[in-house]
This record gives sequence, structure tokens and C-alpha cells, in this order.
Amino acid sequence: MDKEKTPKLNTEQPQESRRRFLGKGAMLGLAGAGVSLLSGCKEDAPAKASASASAAAKAVAGGHEVAPGQLDDYYLFSSGGHSGEARIMGVPSGRTLRRIPVFNIDPMVGWGITNESKAIMGTNPDGSLKYTTGDTHHVHGSYKEGTYDGRWLFVNDKIHSRIARIRMDTMECDKITELPNVAGFHGIFPDKRDPVDPKINYTTRVFCGGEFHVPLPNDGRDLDDPSKWGALFSCVDAATMEVRWQVRIDGNCDLVATSYDGTLAASNQYNVENAPDQVGMMAAERDACVFFNVARIEKMIKDGKSTTIGKSKVPVVDGRKAANGDAKTAITCYVPVGKNPHGVNASPDGKYFVCSGKLSPTATVIELALVTKWFNGELKTERDTVVAEPEIGLGPLHTAFDGKGNAFTTLFLDSQIVKWNVDKAIAQFKGDKTVKPVLDKVDVHYQPGHGYASMGETKDADGKYFNSGNKFSKDRFLPVGPLHSETEQLIDISGDKMRVISDHTAYPEPHDAIIVRRDLVKTRQIYNMDDFPNAVKPENAGIERKGNKVHVRLMSQAPAFSMPVIKVKKGDEVTITLTNYDKVEDLTHGCAIPNYNINFIVNPQETKSVTFKADKPGAYWMYCTHFCHALHLEMRSRFLVEA
Amino acid sequence: MDKEKTPKLNTEQPQESRRRFLGKGAMLGLAGAGVSLLSGCKEDAPAKASASASAAAKAVAGGHEVAPGQLDDYYLFSSGGHSGEARIMGVPSGRTLRRIPVFNIDPMVGWGITNESKAIMGTNPDGSLKYTTGDTHHVHGSYKEGTYDGRWLFVNDKIHSRIARIRMDTMECDKITELPNVAGFHGIFPDKRDPVDPKINYTTRVFCGGEFHVPLPNDGRDLDDPSKWGALFSCVDAATMEVRWQVRIDGNCDLVATSYDGTLAASNQYNVENAPDQVGMMAAERDACVFFNVARIEKMIKDGKSTTIGKSKVPVVDGRKAANGDAKTAITCYVPVGKNPHGVNASPDGKYFVCSGKLSPTATVIELALVTKWFNGELKTERDTVVAEPEIGLGPLHTAFDGKGNAFTTLFLDSQIVKWNVDKAIAQFKGDKTVKPVLDKVDVHYQPGHGYASMGETKDADGKYFNSGNKFSKDRFLPVGPLHSETEQLIDISGDKMRVISDHTAYPEPHDAIIVRRDLVKTRQIYNMDDFPNAVKPENAGIERKGNKVHVRLMSQAPAFSMPVIKVKKGDEVTITLTNYDKVEDLTHGCAIPNYNINFIVNPQETKSVTFKADKPGAYWMYCTHFCHALHLEMRSRFLVEA
Repeated sequence: MDKEKTPKLNTEQPQESRRRFLGKGAMLGLAGAGVSLLSGCKEDAPAKASASASAAAKAVAGGHEVAPGQLDDYYLFSSGGHSGEARIMGVPSGRTLRRIPVFNIDPMVGWGITNESKAIMGTNPDGSLKYTTGDTHHVHGSYKEGTYDGRWLFVNDKIHSRIARIRMDTMECDKITELPNVAGFHGIFPDKRDPVDPKINYTTRVFCGGEFHVPLPNDGRDLDDPSKWGALFSCVDAATMEVRWQVRIDGNCDLVATSYDGTLAASNQYNVENAPDQVGMMAAERDACVFFNVARIEKMIKDGKSTTIGKSKVPVVDGRKAANGDAKTAITCYVPVGKNPHGVNASPDGKYFVCSGKLSPTATVIELALVTKWFNGELKTERDTVVAEPEIGLGPLHTAFDGKGNAFTTLFLDSQIVKWNVDKAIAQFKGDKTVKPVLDKVDVHYQPGHGYASMGETKDADGKYFNSGNKFSKDRFLPVGPLHSETEQLIDISGDKMRVISDHTAYPEPHDAIIVRRDLVKTRQIYNMDDFPNAVKPENAGIERKGNKVHVRLMSQAPAFSMPVIKVKKGDEVTITLTNYDKVEDLTHGCAIPNYNINFIVNPQETKSVTFKADKPGAYWMYCTHFCHALHLEMRSRFLVEA
Repeated sequence: MDKEKTPKLNTEQPQESRRRFLGKGAMLGLAGAGVSLLSGCKEDAPAKASASASAAAKAVAGGHEVAPGQLDDYYLFSSGGHSGEARIMGVPSGRTLRRIPVFNIDPMVGWGITNESKAIMGTNPDGSLKYTTGDTHHVHGSYKEGTYDGRWLFVNDKIHSRIARIRMDTMECDKITELPNVAGFHGIFPDKRDPVDPKINYTTRVFCGGEFHVPLPNDGRDLDDPSKWGALFSCVDAATMEVRWQVRIDGNCDLVATSYDGTLAASNQYNVENAPDQVGMMAAERDACVFFNVARIEKMIKDGKSTTIGKSKVPVVDGRKAANGDAKTAITCYVPVGKNPHGVNASPDGKYFVCSGKLSPTATVIELALVTKWFNGELKTERDTVVAEPEIGLGPLHTAFDGKGNAFTTLFLDSQIVKWNVDKAIAQFKGDKTVKPVLDKVDVHYQPGHGYASMGETKDADGKYFNSGNKFSKDRFLPVGPLHSETEQLIDISGDKMRVISDHTAYPEPHDAIIVRRDLVKTRQIYNMDDFPNAVKPENAGIERKGNKVHVRLMSQAPAFSMPVIKVKKGDEVTITLTNYDKVEDLTHGCAIPNYNINFIVNPQETKSVTFKADKPGAYWMYCTHFCHALHLEMRSRFLVEA
């Protein structure tokens, strides 16, 4: 086996190589992945380990088209993967209603260009952006009384271990926080209630699963000794976006879920082995779902039983197994689950957590009340919290719920969605051999990653729609070259049988998303000018010079900027502050300055600013880039830079 | 009137102010713009100047849904406005099949991050990108025998006056050229045939309309004397992407069209006045559509009758009216058309150009044969080339054709599409008072800019679909904050009456697009590894060090990179070249390096590279960001930077 610890590529025969690498120890499902990926169609997939797809469950279209002028029933808030953005789609139409730039530069809105956005994104000492890439995986909304309150969305960046917050009234990012000593920040979930004060029945914390283990601190030490590396689970304050505390854990965290009663956060772990190589990461037959006792963690920190790591001042407590031998004082509980799990989700009735196996054809159902019992020292082992472990298909990843007792899990290797009943799975686990937990399966195209149901992450789960976020589209859309779109398949789950009702495309690569009832989202359609302290007023509009610093205070109103001519000198540091005086919904103006790499927009009543050095003499037509009026094309002013 | 030359903003009463600014001299249509924009709905629009919308033409949905697994019939290639990108949509589904980064940074694919893309985009001496913003307005495909050959797309950047080319086999940008001495490069159109050699019946040139007039050269001279400024019309070689020649013109160029016989290029002009201010730009009752005699221009240049401007070596000839008094030797012909036109389009039968008035409720039909006659000295005035000027509605902008003799024009102020018959318009212009050129009108939502028909810019115009690119969506979609999506409305134009069949969203702000039959597009679905001279081979894979320059030659094959550990020293200049050895369609890998702001993808058999300074000691998990395999999450290597 030693030979196989370092993956070797056989560049001549990729399929052979992959199979050889997987080795004899690999699971049936894993070998299946190779075949399935190479063929890209269900027909060539290996024999199913469980019930085959129902003939009645074939894709059927129609009946869910959103006609011109009609509105969608739901918002779908999605991550955008390594595009660095978040997105809003309409359900069931599949219309992309908006991109929300977060970790990426967006020249359309001026994200990463305006002074205001650069301050949120973070800059180097020279004023350039610290990072321009990001990898968003999970988006979750803030809660009140177990459902969305429409206030905030939280989204992670895996590349640079940052958490961002999006205001849901304007759908714009307003804060970004970098997590100290965390690498590969993957899963994210807001809490739903305070663990101590039941009156605080809304989100005040966001939990962040750190995936990669790295030297602590990561300053060049311990490079050759991964056994000394570690991973942290972090808690961020939802209001201030400051990091409240961190827990050092065994293994790698991945996704996160929280209990409705506020007491527990959970994270699945795919590498309890703490292995630095791939074969090692698959060594153990079981990995874990780790539970965090939030109240105990915060009590420990209050009692001063924490340390810090490197330059970070964030308190860190030890959640590793060795330090948590006594359940009655433990802050963590590692529940053994199927091999290399990818996904943990809380059921809408508040009772269960479901953790899928990925390399095991099972989903593990863990009962919240039993985890609480374990923390009280009333159970023998962590495994005693498990109440079901149905065999549901190959490559199970993420589970959603319909609020009627059913679970829907994406099967990556089978390219299917499986519907199964939680109570039946519990009965089966208790020994009832007559019960069949799996109720239905439907083919998706192809290899689903995340799946999520309408309101499925809340107590208001309504069982109407399930979206399968498929990782490969292959032949589902017109070919557009080697890079493929992803397939988002919308499934009607309101009946006994699932029905695929539409295929939508998504620019790579959305991961998780939430589907939110439209009445829960209350947006502002124009800004309040007074919300901007730097709003330009008629009395201070114009040019102000202090030495070589020039401040141009400008107003826009269709179809003109307030100054037809702006004159500065070569070498000036120019700040342009622009307030849009139009009050009409949708009347946005753009402001581009040719050869100065400037473009940004101002929505109705909004103010934004840019600062740059006027280093190129000449005449430049500053023009409106966002169509505003019949004379939009004529909306341009002369920006003159004297030599 | 002097007072009104400088637009003054009345911040208290925007509507009043706009009206006052527009003044008594403004057209009915213009005043209508104010009302229409402020109200945002058809009901409040001013009384129509022509036939009202047919009751039968109301929006009707259904029947054009593309079911799961079905493919679209057409590709829609669209500009992305100030997002800086181009896009591919499917028709009729409205699915966004792909974004194509061009002038923007795209962290998903690594555009603006890889060495290869940075070389195309252009860099400053310090290696940073010269520009990261762009404003794409027009996308057009290369031609062969009057229809698309599926080879190239050309797209403009208005902010920085650049033209980009996209390879249609891979749908990636492969060249970007900056036009010298051009500001506000707006319209773009490939030629369809050589003006001299009829055997060259395909695209060899691309014509570029320069919109803004600036000092020539623009180096700080003549800042206060706009009368000395000028605008240029440019010709770019389609194969080399070098600028062949430029023509100095009177007025500002805007959109471009070309004749099917290759002899003429045309551009509408909204500012024949050469005015530097808005009121001046609207002073004349007629503007122009200027025609360029391509053969004569190239003969002049061949004969050495050209100059150059500033540091540019591109030959420039004088196309201003004063230098072109004799039609028999003239290189330009300025045909008077309706006030401030925005749009010129060639009819699929090769006979006509249609130039819309914008501030005049008319479209002007110019006959190609008569323009040729004018250049031969056989006509008295330029206006004698006009064969029709039907009154079609308020704010006409762009015209498309169905190949059956009908034209479809967007009416910005009326928020309608008007269908009118070209022959009937000609008959009316000749004096037949009984004929009614306008056949139908349909409401769109709201304020359409560009409109284009399936294959409508080719001799194969098939009259199936027309897409209305509306500039305001207002209430058409679920609200997502102050920034609105645009509305793309697909209209069935196959029958006598137009039918709006679906509303799609588009991230701001698409302008023009083309709708191409799917059989004309032949893409490559995986790359040929041999096309990449720097492709990593097993025999040269690994680390090579030369002083402090380290070259890491890496291969990817799901689910692993070829090196589990990469070790460099702080201060090294690291180049990573990555070749994807997977051969399976859609099996793309990503490569992110945390804290080093690196992410890019490699599609099957593709090679890309990045170069950066290893300035942060520590251990960083280089990981795959593009889902590839069941063990995708475990596809990560240690990138170690020794202190």
C-alpha cells in the first residue's frame, strides 16, 4: 500500500490510472465514480446498490413556466463558487435576477473600484486590493423564530478564509472578515437561537467550518510535520462580524448545521485521520459528525480557559478528543458516521441531523435529544446518538427536507435524487425488516452536488421544490466549447413521485443555495440619500483643491452630470464623489472615465466615490455607461487633464 | 438659449428640471422620454405619433419552453456592457450558456490571472493589468458568403477603445487591440466581402465607429478648443487584428453596418454638429449616416495619400466633408437622416440600409445602389440616396429584418416594437398616400434599446424570433434591491402579429447581440494538448530551479495533481504550469492557492500558467476548485513556502 500513498498519474491511460489509484481498498462507490465520470451518462453507470429509479419518475416538463409579466414564487440565493460572487435566481423560472459581487471585481457596479467597496474588500498598503479571487460555497440567511428574517445573507470564501455578509434590503455586501489561522474555510451556518437566553430567538452568531489543517500559526513553522497541524472551527458575531471564538478540533471540518434550539452546532468531517495525503484521508472506515456545545464553549472562554494563536487575539479553546474525555464537561462530541461524509443538515422539526456518507452508501441520522443526553453523560458512546443509517444509494452528499417527514438526498455517483422517509429509516434501524425507507428516485443530469428544498432549512419547509445542483452538464445544453455550464434541475416534490420540471444553467460553480419564500424578502428599491455621509449636496457640489488633492463633487440626473467640464492637472490625486439625484426606480447611472480604468454605477439616490491619479494628460469624455434616458448617449462631460 | 447650454441640475424637482433643460426646441419624443422614464409604464406615455398597439399583440406566453434534455435552436451572442464580458444565451430558452470574460477579470476561469490571459489583455511595466474595466456594446460574427462562418466574434470596448476577437471553436478571447487616437469606440461590424476581389467572399476587415471627438493626438493639447478635436473611423484586419487604416470624419460615429457586396461601410452619426455640449449635439434638425467607400480609401493609402497622428503609425486619411467635395473622388458620403440617429442596419437582401432617428419618429431607408451612384457622381445630393422615411413611432433605435421584406424597429420612447414593410415605405415615400407601411406594434417592458432577429444580420434571415433588449425592467421580476436586471423579451415574429413569448433577465447591460442558427457553430469540446507549446509532459514534470526562479510543471488528473508536495523558498518567483490530462468532456479542474490570490481552471487537455512571488512563508493547500470527481474535495497538494 505504501506505493499508493503518493498519487501517481498515468498519463497514457487515465481510466486505468484512476482505477489503480483507487486500489482494492476503495469502495464500490468510488470505483463507480471513475466509470460514471468517464462515460458521463447514467446508462453506463455501475449497477445500483439500492432501488432503481422509478419509471414514473422520468423528467417531465411543462406547467411551471413563468409567463411574461408574472413573478416567481421564491428567491434562490446561491453561492457562485470560484466566480467569487453570490447570485439570486427566481424559482421556478430559473431567471438569474442578480449577481452580487463579493470577493471578485465587478466593473459593472464598480465593486473593487469604488473607495467604498475597496474598504470592504480590504487593500494592501499601496491601495491595491488584497485579494481579487474567492470561492464561495455556502450561502445562508439570518433567522428569526426558526425561519428567515430577510435581514442578512452570509457567504464564505474558501480560498482566503473569509466570511462576507450581504444586506438583504439592498442585496449588497457590507462586511468581509478574514478568519485568523483558518485555511480552506468551507461550511457556514448562522445560529437560530441563543443557547442560553431563549428570548434571543434569532441569529446572533455564524459558525464557520475550517477544512484544511495547517501549522498554527502558519508562519513557516512545522512545514514538514503535518502531525502538528490543526484546524479550527470559528464563531463570528452576526452583528459586528468580528470573530468571537475558535475551537481547535481533530480532523477537517466541512459543512455546518445548527440546531433550532440554539444549543448545538454541527460539522461533518471527512478526514478524522488528520492525514496530509489522499489515501490517508480515506483510511478510516468511519469519519465523524462533530457537535459543538455552544454554551459550554462560551462559558470556558468567559472563565478565561482559552489561548490565542500567533498574532490573532481571538480566544481559542481545545475541542480535540484528547481534551474532551469527560462528556459532562466536553465542548465537542464526535459522532462516528459513514466514510468521508460531505454534508450535514438539520431537519425542520428540530429533531435530527442527517450526515451523508459520500464514500458510504448511507445517510446517518443523529437525534439532537440524544446528543444532549451524551453531553449530560447519559450515553455510553457517541455512536449511541445515531437513530438511523439507511442505505440510500451511491455517493450521498446533501440532504434537504419537505417538512412532511421526508428527506431528499443527492447521490453523486448514481446521478440521482433519492427521497426517503426519516421515521421509516428509524424504524428500520430499530429492527423492522419490513419497512422500506426509500420512497422514490429520480435521475438528474449529471452528478449532483448540493440539493436544497424550498424553505427546507427552516421550520417552514413547504415541500414544493427541490433544486439539484449538478456538477456536470455534458450534453444537456448547446455546446459552447470545452468549458461547460452547470445544470440546475428544478424538481417538483409536492407529490409522491418527484418530477424534474426544468433544466437551468449556472455559470460555474454554484455549490449550496437556499430557496426563500418571496414574502420574506423586503428590499429597498431606491436608496435613502441621507444614508450616505458623503452625499453631494448642491451647496458643496463642484471642485475643491487642496494642494494636489482635488475633490470633484458631482451629481447625476438623467440625462446629465452636474458639471459639463472638469479640469485637473497632471499629477493630481483626484477623488470623484457622485450622487445620483434621480428618484425613479431603476434609473441607474454609470460613470466611466476612459483610459483611467474607472467604471461604477450609482443607483437612485446613491453616492459612491473613486480616487485615482491623473497621470495622463488629455481630454477624456466621462460618460454614462448605464442606459438612463433617450439622451443617455449624449450624457457625457469633458474630463480634462492639463499637461 | 445661452443659459441652457450648460445643463443645470435642479435637485429639488427632477422632472421639472429635465423638461426645462430640454427646452422649447426639443422634439416631442424627447419630452416624452422624461415622462416615460419617470412613470416607467406605458399607460403614462404620451399620445402616440402613429398607429397604436394592436389589441391582438398582447403578451402571450407558452409553447416555446425548452424541456429538460432538449436543446435550443439558436445561439444568442451578446455584449455585456460595462460588465466587460460577452455572453452566450440559448434561444428560445433564454438560458445563459456561458459568460466569456474579455475586458474584465474572471477569477473562475482565471482570466486576468493566468500569464496567457494577461498577455492578451495587456499589462503595465510592473506586470499588473493595464485595464480591468470595459464596456462592450456590439458583438458580430465573421461572415462567409453572406452568412456566419462560425469562426470569430468581434466585440468592442467603449471605455478604452479596444476591439477583441473571440474564437468560436473554444469561445475564448484570443486577441485584443487598442485603437490609436480613438475615444468612445462604439459600433463594430465585420465586412462581408472584399470591395475589389469578389473571390474573397468572407470577412477580412472589421470596421470600428469612433464616437467621441478628442484632441488628435490626445496628449494635453487643444483642451480648451473642442473645435480642433476630431473622431476617427477605423479598419482592423480580422486575421492579424492590426489596425489597417483610419478615416478622420466630421461628427461622431456610432453604430456600423456593412454592405453584402463589400463596397461600403456605414455609420450613423448623432452629432454632426461636432458640439462639445448636449444642447449643441441636438441643434441640427438632421444628422447623418456616413458611408465609407472602402476601395477608394485603400487606394488612397496605397498611393501614399495618408498621414499619421502622434505616435501611431496607422495611416489616416481625411474623410471630412471639406476634403470630399467631389463625389467622384470622395471616400465618404454623408446622407442626411433623422435627428440624433442611433442605429444603422443592412437589409438581408443587400439592397438597403435603415438608419433610425431616435429624436425623429422616422426610419430613413437608404438604397445601396443609389449611394454607389452618388459616389459615381450621378446624383445631385446625398439626400437623393434616400428611398423611404416612414413615420414609425417615438424613439426609433435599431432595426432588424425577417428576410420577407419586413423590418422590426425598437421604439425606445413608446416602449414598443414596430413591424413595418420596406416596400410599402418606399411606395409611400414615392407618393402613394393609400399605403400604410406600419403593420403591427407590440408593447415591450420597458424602453427597448437594441433589437435583433434570428439570423437577421445575414442573407439567411429566417423571420422566426426577434429579441427586444429592454433597458428598464422595473416591476417585471422579483425585486432585488435598487439595481435592476435588464429584460430580454423574446418575440415570435413568424406570423402576421408579433407575440411576446418570454421574459428573460440579463445582468446589466447587454446592448447588441446576434442570433445564430445552431448548425453554424462548431465548437471543440476538448482541447488538443499539442496546441499548447508549454504543455507539461511526464518527462519534464516536476520542479526546476534557476536562481530564485522556480518553475513547477504540474499535471492534473481526477482526483489528484501530479505532485502532492511542492516546496519553494520565501522570495522565489514561482511559475506554475498546469496541464489537464483528463480527456473526458466537461472534466475541468480548478487550481487555487490560498493567500496567494490564485485561481484558474484547466479544461480537458488544456495548459495554463501563473507566475507570482512566494512572499508569505507557510503551508498552503493548493486545491481543486472545479468539481471533478467523488474525491474532488480530497484533491489538494501542499504548497510549502520555507521562511
